Amino acid sequence: MRLSHLVGERVKEAPAGASVKSQIFLMRAGFIKQVSNGIFTLLPPAQRVSKKIQAIIREEMDKVDGQEVLFPVVMPKEMWEKSGRYYSIGSEMVRFKDRANRDMLLGMTHEEAAVHACQNIVKSYDQLPLMIYQIQTKFRDEARPRAGLIRVKEFTMKDAYSFHTSNEDLEEYYYKVFDAYNRIFERVGMKNFISVKSDTGMMGGSYAHEFMLLTDIGEDSIVICPHCDYKSNMEVASSIYEKPNFEDKKLEEVYTGSAKSIDEVCEFLKVTPKQTMKAVCYAVVGDDKRTVVAFVRGDKEINEAKLKKVIGSDIAVKDLENTELVKGNIGGVNLKGDNLTIVYDKSLENMCGLVCGANKEEYHLTGVNVVRDIDNDKFYDISKVNEGELCPVCGNPLTIKRGIEIGNIFQLGTKYTKSMGMTVTMPDGSQINPIMGCYGIGVGRCLASVTEELADDKGLVWPISIAPWHIYLCPLRNDDQAVAEKAEELYKTLSKKFEVLYDDRKVSAGVKLTDSELMGIPVRVVVSPRSLSANQAEITIRQTGEKIMVELEKIESELSKLIK
Amino acid sequence: MRLSHLVGERVKEAPAGASVKSQIFLMRAGFIKQVSNGIFTLLPPAQRVSKKIQAIIREEMDKVDGQEVLFPVVMPKEMWEKSGRYYSIGSEMVRFKDRANRDMLLGMTHEEAAVHACQNIVKSYDQLPLMIYQIQTKFRDEARPRAGLIRVKEFTMKDAYSFHTSNEDLEEYYYKVFDAYNRIFERVGMKNFISVKSDTGMMGGSYAHEFMLLTDIGEDSIVICPHCDYKSNMEVASSIYEKPNFEDKKLEEVYTGSAKSIDEVCEFLKVTPKQTMKAVCYAVVGDDKRTVVAFVRGDKEINEAKLKKVIGSDIAVKDLENTELVKGNIGGVNLKGDNLTIVYDKSLENMCGLVCGANKEEYHLTGVNVVRDIDNDKFYDISKVNEGELCPVCGNPLTIKRGIEIGNIFQLGTKYTKSMGMTVTMPDGSQINPIMGCYGIGVGRCLASVTEELADDKGLVWPISIAPWHIYLCPLRNDDQAVAEKAEELYKTLSKKFEVLYDDRKVSAGVKLTDSELMGIPVRVVVSPRSLSANQAEITIRQTGEKIMVELEKIESELSKLIK
Repeated sequence: MRLSHLVGERVKEAPAGASVKSQIFLMRAGFIKQVSNGIFTLLPPAQRVSKKIQAIIREEMDKVDGQEVLFPVVMPKEMWEKSGRYYSIGSEMVRFKDRANRDMLLGMTHEEAAVHACQNIVKSYDQLPLMIYQIQTKFRDEARPRAGLIRVKEFTMKDAYSFHTSNEDLEEYYYKVFDAYNRIFERVGMKNFISVKSDTGMMGGSYAHEFMLLTDIGEDSIVICPHCDYKSNMEVASSIYEKPNFEDKKLEEVYTGSAKSIDEVCEFLKVTPKQTMKAVCYAVVGDDKRTVVAFVRGDKEINEAKLKKVIGSDIAVKDLENTELVKGNIGGVNLKGDNLTIVYDKSLENMCGLVCGANKEEYHLTGVNVVRDIDNDKFYDISKVNEGELCPVCGNPLTIKRGIEIGNIFQLGTKYTKSMGMTVTMPDGSQINPIMGCYGIGVGRCLASVTEELADDKGLVWPISIAPWHIYLCPLRNDDQAVAEKAEELYKTLSKKFEVLYDDRKVSAGVKLTDSELMGIPVRVVVSPRSLSANQAEITIRQTGEKIMVELEKIESELSKLIK
Repeated sequence: MRLSHLVGERVKEAPAGASVKSQIFLMRAGFIKQVSNGIFTLLPPAQRVSKKIQAIIREEMDKVDGQEVLFPVVMPKEMWEKSGRYYSIGSEMVRFKDRANRDMLLGMTHEEAAVHACQNIVKSYDQLPLMIYQIQTKFRDEARPRAGLIRVKEFTMKDAYSFHTSNEDLEEYYYKVFDAYNRIFERVGMKNFISVKSDTGMMGGSYAHEFMLLTDIGEDSIVICPHCDYKSNMEVASSIYEKPNFEDKKLEEVYTGSAKSIDEVCEFLKVTPKQTMKAVCYAVVGDDKRTVVAFVRGDKEINEAKLKKVIGSDIAVKDLENTELVKGNIGGVNLKGDNLTIVYDKSLENMCGLVCGANKEEYHLTGVNVVRDIDNDKFYDISKVNEGELCPVCGNPLTIKRGIEIGNIFQLGTKYTKSMGMTVTMPDGSQINPIMGCYGIGVGRCLASVTEELADDKGLVWPISIAPWHIYLCPLRNDDQAVAEKAEELYKTLSKKFEVLYDDRKVSAGVKLTDSELMGIPVRVVVSPRSLSANQAEITIRQTGEKIMVELEKIESELSKLIK
């Protein structure tokens, strides 16, 4: 490819509002262009990377006997009514009416379509196990797209669905895909990634893993035990933590004035957050009247993913205006109200000597004994793990890291086959609903994650396996006829064996060298009047900066060693 | 691939309402499954064919210096307001509001996105010409999906967009793509296809060709001169036709009673349709009050595509109730009315002695002299060509054939670059709007068309180049251990070199042989107790039915001759 005609401009300025390395450089290097919030065009260099990632994914899916299909992007409401997700998924799913006024939607994921594809086709136990997958466009109307290709509305995704006759068979296959995922992420060039247990979220099902690239720009918190194998997404992580024995005193109402937050109340009453009880209030999506009040020890945070599961509905932070609740003074003692659902975290179980709101402006209670004073006998794990709490497996202190979710796998169970009525006949003639697994990788996010990990302050860095081109052929001073001729010749020869981006522009050496670094092509070959006078070319490895002078006759064999 | 685990069931019954060969067999052979009207899942065999077609298209697009990109499926209204198409395209374009209440749409075609991608990136004449293309999902809310994958709502399309500094440069590149298209259709195995001049339709622009597969199930009519090179879509075809000199008489009003249609009036007045003037009335989309009355000679039909261009708006057949027009008695003499647009076809120019409606119930006029009696001086070509009319190029009689549009190419001009404000700087410093071409192929329609042409009464027939698998390996009596072992061995050996579909099912020979024909795999290899006793296998060529007995040692070399 001649750079002079490549669609994709290199620019100096970072796009407004961009803060993440991969986003800044993918835009600055002319890989992507924003069409709308969270919607991008992949320009030729990014599409080349994307296709290479897709090829690796296809190979690995085929190795675990995947059969590639193509489901539709647009699906009818009826299909999603059967699974119940037409109603349970919120505004991130696009719904519209077609010209005949039928309700249609844009697929965010294709469990329903996978069951539809196999239903009445796969009818007998001896057709299982099987797995179908697709690489297709998905649209999710994300509330907060961010970081370029990391979190978008429209993206290319590989999604796979397996069908089994038993949990054991699913379990066995699930770990084959688990291994395939590890191979995929290794092959695309990711280094610091891990797999963690995770929440099944809107997919339903019982068991799931996320693959996480560890990076400070990640949105997810991952709880890791450095001593054993325990790794978990914060959403489902648990821990062991100390429960201090505070002195059991009598319940007293004390004036706390304008002290509302945990910090203010602690300051006022000279206690630590551990000795307090914090209330967080939520609205229940789809039930305007209901309010959830979640109580947790003052030093801990509510884990909304866990709380959602307890409630069984989606929740959102509640505005307390027009309710009877006294903001900043809510407490568990004698808290009553119509349409209130009160949930207590396990951190409060059996505690005494606590401080909580008195449900009255300017007052708190001290000496709260949870057993004695609060009418509640069920405590749930609805809190987040804090750094330094102890591993639930080995008891050593936990650390918390940030990560980007680069893939996920789920043991779905029979949620979809049951609700959609898909059955297979077993050897004894009985009918069962096949047990499903599902497995996703976002191609664009994978692309961004690889370069997020590798990019340096000069720009993108691509591993050979997914680089848009292998070689950046860079004649300096191609107004010099000898240089121009040699470059053209090298372009022709090297293109037979490698993918070459040829910088045929008549611009300064500085611009060329900077652009080559910005674009992150793994190997740069420079020819200049000086190198040619020594019958040499200069090879630079983008990732290490290493430079090698090579005689022109040996350039092809040298490049073959570097590019494989 | 083991057939026992393939997703895709072979069935005997044609799907209800299916009448087209490719549709019936693609569904019966388990290649596609309908999800909704005009929306299909491609099951594994069809997706394999689709990917091979895509690979051929990519190769040919890359040969003409195409740069692959990926535009979004979902685009914001603003982009399509600039080009004007947000309003000019009707209900076939899906529009919806996103969660922030912004107007969005599903791309039917990507001229706007292509200009957006290049705008402010391609800024100088020396970056041109260039072409970008994508292979991506499109959704068009077709009013009448039909014939399986031939006319659908959702489909995978290759669409390409080129940018040029002059019409000459576009013209030169346009014919390079023209040649690439011919190569693509040849390589995927199409035989009886032609290219014809066509209407530019909703794309705008000046000049276009359609590639047509000639077949009786085609929706398009193509006018062909068997004597010269003239070929044209009916929408833009013209012809030379005889204009009889009828006797010029005086205008007379005659009673015709209930005779309304051309046939009834001809019967009543004993004239031929050629001597009559037919009125067809249309509503103008977006202008409820206006009515178009189009007059054409009675033996000819209105060409709505041509009429649309004259009117400059979309039109629809008009219901004449609640208008002043007298249905069945409309005539051009003294026809007046508010909001009437009257258009005369060239077939009426200078004619005399004609019959037309008297604009009065139960009466017609005879002796109409168009020059004398009708207040009109502009005649347009708004009629369809009839079979047997004469070629506008060489004067020989024309024939009319049916065809499926399998691809199209357009010279777009500056419609999009101008409306969206894309400019490049020319050598003299001036700014111009680049001139565009666009080039489309529907992948699914291509797949269906190939098999529509080749399928026989037993099922699908695939050319080697795009066959889902090369070989259908078919052990008969695989309850016989020797057969089963040999088949397994052949499956392993042959899979190293070819794509093999292995019928490992324990079903009757009849079912296996019928399925192999239904699925259309090019080469079938049968091993049976009898063939093995002679140390042989039977090879059958699907397309010709030719059978060859081959010794087992020579099977690989024999297959290598057949599959290339």
